[in-house]
Amino acid sequence: MRVDVIANVDDIRSEDFIQKSAVVIDVLRATSTMITALAKGACGLLPVETVPEAQSKRSEHTFVGGERYYKKIPGFQAGNSPHEYMTGEIMGKLVVMTTSNGTRGLLKSQRASRLLAASFINGTACASALTAFERDVILLCAGCKNEFSLEDGLCAGMIIDAMESKFNRTLRLNDLGLAMKLAYQQCSHKLYETIMEGSSAKQLVKLGFAHDVEYCTGLDTVPVVPIAKSELILTPLY
Amino acid sequence: MRVDVIANVDDIRSEDFIQKSAVVIDVLRATSTMITALAKGACGLLPVETVPEAQSKRSEHTFVGGERYYKKIPGFQAGNSPHEYMTGEIMGKLVVMTTSNGTRGLLKSQRASRLLAASFINGTACASALTAFERDVILLCAGCKNEFSLEDGLCAGMIIDAMESKFNRTLRLNDLGLAMKLAYQQCSHKLYETIMEGSSAKQLVKLGFAHDVEYCTGLDTVPVVPIAKSELILTPLY
Repeated sequence: MRVDVIANVDDIRSEDFIQKSAVVIDVLRATSTMITALAKGACGLLPVETVPEAQSKRSEHTFVGGERYYKKIPGFQAGNSPHEYMTGEIMGKLVVMTTSNGTRGLLKSQRASRLLAASFINGTACASALTAFERDVILLCAGCKNEFSLEDGLCAGMIIDAMESKFNRTLRLNDLGLAMKLAYQQCSHKLYETIMEGSSAKQLVKLGFAHDVEYCTGLDTVPVVPIAKSELILTPLY
Repeated sequence: MRVDVIANVDDIRSEDFIQKSAVVIDVLRATSTMITALAKGACGLLPVETVPEAQSKRSEHTFVGGERYYKKIPGFQAGNSPHEYMTGEIMGKLVVMTTSNGTRGLLKSQRASRLLAASFINGTACASALTAFERDVILLCAGCKNEFSLEDGLCAGMIIDAMESKFNRTLRLNDLGLAMKLAYQQCSHKLYETIMEGSSAKQLVKLGFAHDVEYCTGLDTVPVVPIAKSELILTPLY
């Protein structure tokens, strides 16, 4: 089984996902928020690219959320903090989301056989699913402003480490995958402190979202795997 | 002091080097070969972009070498193996080199205040020089075919680790720099074995250059720092 880690959304073409399992990782905060929303009872997640597109989906059956530059979009029901999706309001609703990088990653990956949303909070559950699918894997780090983000790379390393050590897979890794596995293994005992040194976490702390960083770096705390098969609506994999 | 690690030559613009110290890292094999050539008595190194340009520089005062697709270019005096530059023939000569990625990285970085060529074999010497220059640093991993190469990233991690632990600098690192420091620290005791898992090393082994991989991953074995100041000729820093 081959596993490739990609540093950011611009480093891959949508054709590269064909016949593969794809995993989009945007730890701070888009994919952590999506996992949380499904765990709290949302019936599905629809990632969309633009703000008007998200607004046009507003109805009694949807819950519209998202951010630009880390901030909630005016008129939306929520921003991009997982804590805003822990409300009873989302029960049974389709969550429509647009974020700067995470949703862009999901849209880019939609030609994959199976498309998952991962973070530390569901990392081992994702590794288990990928192992069962028996297809080559692309771990797409959403990054930030076309740049690599530390926490997304470390989460890719965590998923690789779990596939190898917990599910006994022999993997062929690309060079970035090898490096991310090493980096994760070096800091797995102090993940929160390490991620706090990264640029996204620093920015979130400045904006008053330190509690989000803490929540999003919790290992396997929300073992729900959002998955899309034929169309781009993510639902929980059971 | 700020230190940014860049994953490959296409991820940066030449203007970004202005006022900074730049370090080009192409462990397998361009920068390792350049360091070796200076250590063995070449008077300087001139990186050039194209094969005809290299050929046009041929004279009794030059030694022309380089590769395309890992192989020596017909008519050149040497390929890109450091072992080909350990000959008495290069004594006192200007080495003219063209390689797929390493020389392209040097040409891209030439607007830096100071431009160094680094590998594991001169890593600590480079870290010492960068510390003394007191400027922000860009560590440019040459990579391979516009992709990140494991050994270049780990060498960037080694230089960062040395600047912090041996020269007591407090550094501000970008996210890739933080990840590469962690990855290096995780495998510093088994560097050769780790790099042998990477795609460049595997390719070199296939082509019969396993001894080059071993040589190029030796820590601090050739403490010579190739440096360019005003023009793009690298000479040893003493």
